[in-house]
Amino acid sequence: MSGIDPQSLMNELASRARLAAIRLAGMASAKKAEALRAAAAAIRADSAAILEANATDMASGRENGLTAALLDRLRLDAGRVEAMASGIESVAALADPVGQVIDRAERPNGMVLTRVRVPIGVIGIIYESRPNVTADAGALAFMSGNAAILRGGSEAIHSNRAIHAALARGLDEAGAPAHAIQLVGITDRAAVGAMLQSEGLIDLVVPRGGKSLVARVQAEARVPVLAHLDGINHSYIDGAADPAMARDIALNAKMRRTGICGATETLLIDRAFADPAPVLAALADAGCELRGSAEIRAIEPRAVAADEADWDTEYLDSILAVKLVDGLDEAMAHIAAHGSHHTDAIVTEDAARAERFLAGVDSAIVMWNASTQFADGGEFGLGAEIGISTGRLHARGPVALEGLTTYKWVVRGTGQTRP
Amino acid sequence: MSGIDPQSLMNELASRARLAAIRLAGMASAKKAEALRAAAAAIRADSAAILEANATDMASGRENGLTAALLDRLRLDAGRVEAMASGIESVAALADPVGQVIDRAERPNGMVLTRVRVPIGVIGIIYESRPNVTADAGALAFMSGNAAILRGGSEAIHSNRAIHAALARGLDEAGAPAHAIQLVGITDRAAVGAMLQSEGLIDLVVPRGGKSLVARVQAEARVPVLAHLDGINHSYIDGAADPAMARDIALNAKMRRTGICGATETLLIDRAFADPAPVLAALADAGCELRGSAEIRAIEPRAVAADEADWDTEYLDSILAVKLVDGLDEAMAHIAAHGSHHTDAIVTEDAARAERFLAGVDSAIVMWNASTQFADGGEFGLGAEIGISTGRLHARGPVALEGLTTYKWVVRGTGQTRP
Repeated sequence: MSGIDPQSLMNELASRARLAAIRLAGMASAKKAEALRAAAAAIRADSAAILEANATDMASGRENGLTAALLDRLRLDAGRVEAMASGIESVAALADPVGQVIDRAERPNGMVLTRVRVPIGVIGIIYESRPNVTADAGALAFMSGNAAILRGGSEAIHSNRAIHAALARGLDEAGAPAHAIQLVGITDRAAVGAMLQSEGLIDLVVPRGGKSLVARVQAEARVPVLAHLDGINHSYIDGAADPAMARDIALNAKMRRTGICGATETLLIDRAFADPAPVLAALADAGCELRGSAEIRAIEPRAVAADEADWDTEYLDSILAVKLVDGLDEAMAHIAAHGSHHTDAIVTEDAARAERFLAGVDSAIVMWNASTQFADGGEFGLGAEIGISTGRLHARGPVALEGLTTYKWVVRGTGQTRP
Repeated sequence: MSGIDPQSLMNELASRARLAAIRLAGMASAKKAEALRAAAAAIRADSAAILEANATDMASGRENGLTAALLDRLRLDAGRVEAMASGIESVAALADPVGQVIDRAERPNGMVLTRVRVPIGVIGIIYESRPNVTADAGALAFMSGNAAILRGGSEAIHSNRAIHAALARGLDEAGAPAHAIQLVGITDRAAVGAMLQSEGLIDLVVPRGGKSLVARVQAEARVPVLAHLDGINHSYIDGAADPAMARDIALNAKMRRTGICGATETLLIDRAFADPAPVLAALADAGCELRGSAEIRAIEPRAVAADEADWDTEYLDSILAVKLVDGLDEAMAHIAAHGSHHTDAIVTEDAARAERFLAGVDSAIVMWNASTQFADGGEFGLGAEIGISTGRLHARGPVALEGLTTYKWVVRGTGQTRP
């Protein structure tokens, strides 16, 4: 595949995507759903070919010394292929936001204004080793009426090509534009750079992957980016918290799954909270390394010393920074200084304090008496999500189909001219 | 004012703005409105000082050979100062979007989710010679709960300082954070560059001015930009248009005011439209230069020849490109190829064709049987607008208070943990 200029390739992909996007924008919801079901059927039909391609990637991965964790992300089996197909069907079953009327007004001169949801256009999606993102992200973009240009990890190129071939055949068989979901077929790393420079050709880039990928995309992009860099999430146990609830929420928020962006990374405990010991003991019993001050270590002897860097670290691991604070204001100040505007929670029985926290903490998601692990589009009832955004514009928090749309103003008059 | 490093200054302004924004975000609507009314009163009280400062700018402007048009934009008089004050009062009377609940859902596990409008944060506004933007844009940002950093043209620096001093005093007297509206006090052009590089410190930049300003901002910004570059707007007279309505709309869309971004720049006429001559005659009679093909010149002898560049030109003048097309599809294809996604209109009595146009034309504003000159936040009932956006994300078309907000997810639970 050498000899292809990445920017020329991207221009070519983007111009085909634009044409597909124009057709997609006018396609009825039922027709889009039907095309996605055909794509899911094609994935199932191609299962053997997809697994064979994946075996090639796995063999190269082993040769190239990929870690066990990376190989696990890369690996497909019959169950994972079926999960891709049924995931596409789930997206096909979601309510289509396109065409939804956001609001309507009639002006004194008789003009009727509506704001109507329309697709964004062409969306670039950059991801790493998991081949299922090819299907998941492609389906989400398609159902919301957008053309997708997918750029997966080079280590998954054969898997991605096989999955993409099935998707494109399914769409085509259902009469949908096959270029609505395109894969960047070259592994040249410069293709990512080309995508990020495609101002005006690509309307939005969504990086799905680790912090280094997101950081590179945010640093280089001339195209709008929807992403979050960090999930340095806090759970604050207020003095008026119910002790058992505080223990259960802290344990779940940290330990249910430590590697997801909604996991709590810092536990703040009000000095007025009567019962911190059982909370910290439950965490330590579950295998969590606690990092805190001498005061914390006096409460829970298994805790180790924290240093300043701990307040700014997203561990994504069984490690928790723990800090005692003097009430709500200090907790909120700590979150303002160290948080990443992702998800922060308060545990308290005091409604007034809870409302002050919910209003005053400037994060995409703020919670009262719930685990930060709920920070997820599916848990929010949005269906599958394309990602979680900590950016302040357009879409914040879990981004699903609606976040992949924009709107236009539609004005219906009867000959009005402006005085 | 030399010796100040522009990036250090911007960092300082932005960090004061952030603190003000945090206070503003929690301020009640009535309190914000009261502070703005105090700012309006301070503008009135300082009228003499503002006019004196403006006289200084006008004298320098004349010395520096500013054009008559620029001098007119720069000039203040008692009426214009009063208009600024009453403009601020109008903004204070607008409905506050902050705190508005966008939607609400209860999850099966009992968690209640609401999406609530919150301010964006810190907004940079870059403008040219009109000193009234200092008051207008500052008031819009303030009412929507955002801290503003204003950077006006260097030719208006004395006027802007005087207006800003009055605003800040008014806010302060009403107990609002005076740093909610800050002015970049240096005229160093590098200050604009510093603002555009202030990623993470400034959340949004709004350029208000001509195309060269907007183009520079879009090219250099590492911060999201809300703007439109061009308003190459089309009015399409369909074969089924009412002839008198077509004439009135075309005349108004082009000639009511030629210098605004909603003015029509290209008139497309269906060859099936029976009566193009009176439309073109009315435009020529009104002093509009018509540019078109030999076919057009045969219909209206005062028309001159168009070349290819005419289809891509925003004249902002009494000039109109005119083209005959074979029906709706050719009109839509022309708009897709040459439009700027701002405002495009169809004139027709055929509802099915109108709906096809409204759905298929990918512009921020699409209109049926109305003049493109209505493309304006005030005309849309939004109150004053900060600008019109042709970007696809966040806000599209006229952007007023709501477009200066974002949202957060608020989750209220009763101890839920994620299974």
